[in-house]
Amino acid sequence: MFENEKRMAAMEALKFVRNDMRIGIGTGSTAYYFIEGLSELVKNGLRITGIPTSKKSEELCRSFNIPVDYNIKDIDIDFDGADEFDPYGNLIKGGGGALVREKIVAYNSREFYVLVDHSKYSERLHKFPLPVEVLPFMSEKTLENIERLGCRASFRDDKKFISDNGNYIIDCVFSYTDPELESQIKMIPGVVEVGIFRHLATKIFQGTIDGCRIIDVK
Amino acid sequence: MFENEKRMAAMEALKFVRNDMRIGIGTGSTAYYFIEGLSELVKNGLRITGIPTSKKSEELCRSFNIPVDYNIKDIDIDFDGADEFDPYGNLIKGGGGALVREKIVAYNSREFYVLVDHSKYSERLHKFPLPVEVLPFMSEKTLENIERLGCRASFRDDKKFISDNGNYIIDCVFSYTDPELESQIKMIPGVVEVGIFRHLATKIFQGTIDGCRIIDVK
Repeated sequence: MFENEKRMAAMEALKFVRNDMRIGIGTGSTAYYFIEGLSELVKNGLRITGIPTSKKSEELCRSFNIPVDYNIKDIDIDFDGADEFDPYGNLIKGGGGALVREKIVAYNSREFYVLVDHSKYSERLHKFPLPVEVLPFMSEKTLENIERLGCRASFRDDKKFISDNGNYIIDCVFSYTDPELESQIKMIPGVVEVGIFRHLATKIFQGTIDGCRIIDVK
Repeated sequence: MFENEKRMAAMEALKFVRNDMRIGIGTGSTAYYFIEGLSELVKNGLRITGIPTSKKSEELCRSFNIPVDYNIKDIDIDFDGADEFDPYGNLIKGGGGALVREKIVAYNSREFYVLVDHSKYSERLHKFPLPVEVLPFMSEKTLENIERLGCRASFRDDKKFISDNGNYIIDCVFSYTDPELESQIKMIPGVVEVGIFRHLATKIFQGTIDGCRIIDVK
């Protein structure tokens, strides 16, 4: 859905990539258009190093001959999608199940550019279930502990979905996902990471019917 | 060291185990005396179900014919050691590298009894390096991010130590381990769990030369 808007956002973001940059490379349908466009630039001589946020994106980069290196100290810009965002630049991520690596890369990048179509915007985060990555050990109890914060929670694909880190994803339906929940959920033992991204996005590239709107968050 | 004190603490704590209890079974040298004593009681007819906090303790339980089950909804009492404790019942744990499962079990138990020798007491936590479990992905950056909070940090055994969850342990030397650091460190992406245990211990069994002192925390 909204394939053209996603492509517009990716194309606009690609204009910020310069020679010798070290860039985070996200996961998901919008990130795919970014990777595709990046491969064209690399083919035409652009030198960059990529830090993919999932095994899937890593494979994609390698198939497109985009150089990959995880032993990078400083990441210039991270480019990634989002499942939902609000006017303050708070994001919900993890629909693709890669939220942990996505958050580690975003946190360790100087800039974090978010690529989305228009449908991802919400006044208040409520459309997309909140993904939470949890350790398998006593995960039924961890799910109960998360539900106590006021949501309906379920294991993604009945525990058949396993993250790149060997863990489960729990999807949590709150009537409204208050960004404050990030720390409340992360403090529960057994929780590895929460799909709320606060104070991380620096620019949001929102594709439109005929172009791309760039929102400066900070 | 202090083997007799550890044994004293374990023997005193064992008096609280009743038939049909579901109990957490800790990891480490003091927990070993507890498991040994428990196996005697089981041999003499005590019926309990154990939830071990590490693969090592699980093996020990099985070798002693102590029943083990991880699909337990409610744990009555968790029995475990600690590396250091303060007058408020704050603990440092993770010297054995099992802090994540230890914390999950302690958090999900109605009572948490801590078994220690006299040397583990500190007015303010500062004697034992703080263990933190981190994901391998970009773990050098995670170490840097932890050090920014004011400590010297190093990978346990140069990354050769791998936890039961497949992760690294970083040992952090603060001049004083403020319990408030728990949430500051846990909020860093890539951190799975922190070896500060707050508001969890309900009784501390401190072995002495000729007996055991029981401290009620809550």
